[in-house]
Amino acid sequence: MTEPGKTVPTDAQALASATAHAMWERDRTAQALAMRIEHIAPGHATLSMPIRSDMVNGHHICHGGMIFTLADTAFAYACNSYNQTTVASACHVDFIAPAKEGEVLQAEATERSASGRTGVYDVTVRTAEGKLIALFRGKSHRIGGEVICGPDHA
Amino acid sequence: MTEPGKTVPTDAQALASATAHAMWERDRTAQALAMRIEHIAPGHATLSMPIRSDMVNGHHICHGGMIFTLADTAFAYACNSYNQTTVASACHVDFIAPAKEGEVLQAEATERSASGRTGVYDVTVRTAEGKLIALFRGKSHRIGGEVICGPDHA
Amino acid sequence: MTEPGKTVPTDAQALASATAHAMWERDRTAQALAMRIEHIAPGHATLSMPIRSDMVNGHHICHGGMIFTLADTAFAYACNSYNQTTVASACHVDFIAPAKEGEVLQAEATERSASGRTGVYDVTVRTAEGKLIALFRGKSHRIGGEVICGPDHA
Amino acid sequence: MTEPGKTVPTDAQALASATAHAMWERDRTAQALAMRIEHIAPGHATLSMPIRSDMVNGHHICHGGMIFTLADTAFAYACNSYNQTTVASACHVDFIAPAKEGEVLQAEATERSASGRTGVYDVTVRTAEGKLIALFRGKSHRIGGEVICGPDHA
Repeated sequence: MTEPGKTVPTDAQALASATAHAMWERDRTAQALAMRIEHIAPGHATLSMPIRSDMVNGHHICHGGMIFTLADTAFAYACNSYNQTTVASACHVDFIAPAKEGEVLQAEATERSASGRTGVYDVTVRTAEGKLIALFRGKSHRIGGEVICGPDHA
Repeated sequence: MTEPGKTVPTDAQALASATAHAMWERDRTAQALAMRIEHIAPGHATLSMPIRSDMVNGHHICHGGMIFTLADTAFAYACNSYNQTTVASACHVDFIAPAKEGEVLQAEATERSASGRTGVYDVTVRTAEGKLIALFRGKSHRIGGEVICGPDHA
Repeated sequence: MTEPGKTVPTDAQALASATAHAMWERDRTAQALAMRIEHIAPGHATLSMPIRSDMVNGHHICHGGMIFTLADTAFAYACNSYNQTTVASACHVDFIAPAKEGEVLQAEATERSASGRTGVYDVTVRTAEGKLIALFRGKSHRIGGEVICGPDHA
Repeated sequence: MTEPGKTVPTDAQALASATAHAMWERDRTAQALAMRIEHIAPGHATLSMPIRSDMVNGHHICHGGMIFTLADTAFAYACNSYNQTTVASACHVDFIAPAKEGEVLQAEATERSASGRTGVYDVTVRTAEGKLIALFRGKSHRIGGEVICGPDHA
C-alpha cells in the first residue's frame, strides 16, 4: 500500500525513476560512498563512484569490497526498478584488473532473467576510460512489499 | 626484498601477525569502516565490524556490499598471511539473513585449498550472537612481491 | 501425499535413507554414470563415481562436467534428504586439480545453512586417495511435494 | 610444437575450426553425450545436445549436471579456440527453468574478458524453442601447450 501523499507512477520508466529516488533517500551507504545514479530504466541501472583515498586496501589498490559494493548497488537499483521490494540472494564477482585511487568507476546493471520471484542480473564495472575492472552476477529474490511506500508500510 | 629497519619473522605465526600489521597500516578501507582484527594465524583470519548508520541500504538493512567488504577483508588477511602478495581473483557470496544497524558482524576466514599460486578460502559471517548472515568463498591469486616490505618494494 | 503401499518413515535417518532409495530408482543419470551412494544422513550425502574412458575431455583429463555432475548429485541427495522436493537454484565450482581416467571420485555433501525454502550445501570432491579435486557450493530451493511419493503425486 | 603432418592455420577463424576439430576427436564425453558443435569462432562456440532418457534425475527433469556439462563444453571450445591449451578454473551456473527429456538444449559461449592467462566466458543455455534454461559463467586458465598438437606434445 502506498503512503498518503505518495503517488506511484503507472508508466514503467516513471516508476523506475520514482523507485530509485525513494531508495536513494534511505540508502545511507550509497550516499556515504558518494555514488551517483547515472541512468535508470526498468530492469537497468548505471551508477558511478569515484575511488577515494579511504577506498584503498593494504596493497594500495581499490578495495575489492568497494568495487563489489558499487556493483551490488547498481544491481539493487535495477532489480527494484519495478517498485517490488527485492533483495540479493547471492552474488558472484570476477575481478579482472585493479583500479586506483582517483579513478571513477561506472557499474552498469542489466536484467538477464526474471521469472517468478527470482531474477538474474549482470553488472559490468569499468573505469570512466572504459577499462574493464570487474564482472558481477547477482541473483535477486522478491520478498513482498513495495519500495516507494517504504519498509515500514510493507 | 625487505625495507631497511623491517624484520621479517621466520616463525609462521609471527609472520602472519607481522603481515597483518603491515597490511592494516595501509588498509584505509578497513580503518574507515572501523573493522577490527580479532585473530590471525597462517591461512586464517577473523575480523569484526559494527554496523553503523551509514552502512544500511534502501531497505533499512545492512548493505550487502558492507557484509561482502568485511568478508573480503578477512579473506585478504587470511590469504596474505604468508607474506606473499595475494589478491582476490573471484568471490561468491550467499546472503542468508539480513543484519541490522547496531549489530556487530564477525567474519571468520579459513583456507580450504592452496596449490601453486591459487587458493580457495571460505568465510563465514555471523552476528556476535552467532546468527548466520552470509557464506563467502574467495579464490586468491599470488601476484609476486611481499606484503611486509610493501608494494613500493615489490 | 504418499502413494498407497509406500510407507514414509518418521525417524530422520530412516527418512533420509528411504528418500535416497526413491530418488535413486528414478535417477537415470546417476545410474548411467555408475555412481554409488556411499552414505546418507539428514542433510548429508556421500557418493562415488569411477572415471570411465567416456568421461574424459579434449585434454585427456576427466571432463569438468562429470566432476560437477557427481558433486551436484551428492548435493541433490543431501538437500532432498528430508523428503521435501528440492532443486538446485545455483551452483559454484572451483576446480583444484585434474583427475584421470581410472581414478574413483568421492563427493561429500554437507549442509551449511537451511532457512525457509532455501539451503546452502558444500560438496568436497576427492579421489579415493584423498587428493582434493574440486570444491562445490550449491544453493537449493524447495518447490513443494514429497520425494518418496514421486513427482506424479506432488 | 606441432606434430609432423599437422598444419596449424594462421587465420583466426580457420585456427578456431581446426582446434575444435582436434578437441572433438579426443572429447569422449561430448561424443558420449551426443553433443554437436553448431558454430565455432575465435572466443565463441555454440553446441547442442538432445536430452536423452539417461539424462534425467530423481525428479524426472533434466539433470543439472547434464545442463552444466553442455555449458562447460561450449565454454571449453570457446576458450581453447586460439589453440592455446586452456582449462576451467571455476564455474558458476544459475538454473532458471527445468528442461525435459526429448528437448534439445543449445549452449552459446561468448568471451567477456581475456587478459594474461585468464578469461571470463558467459554461456547461455536455451531450448531449441528459445526458452532460457540456465546462465553459466566460467573462468579459464591457460596452462601452456597447444590444443592441435595434443597434450602428448605440450
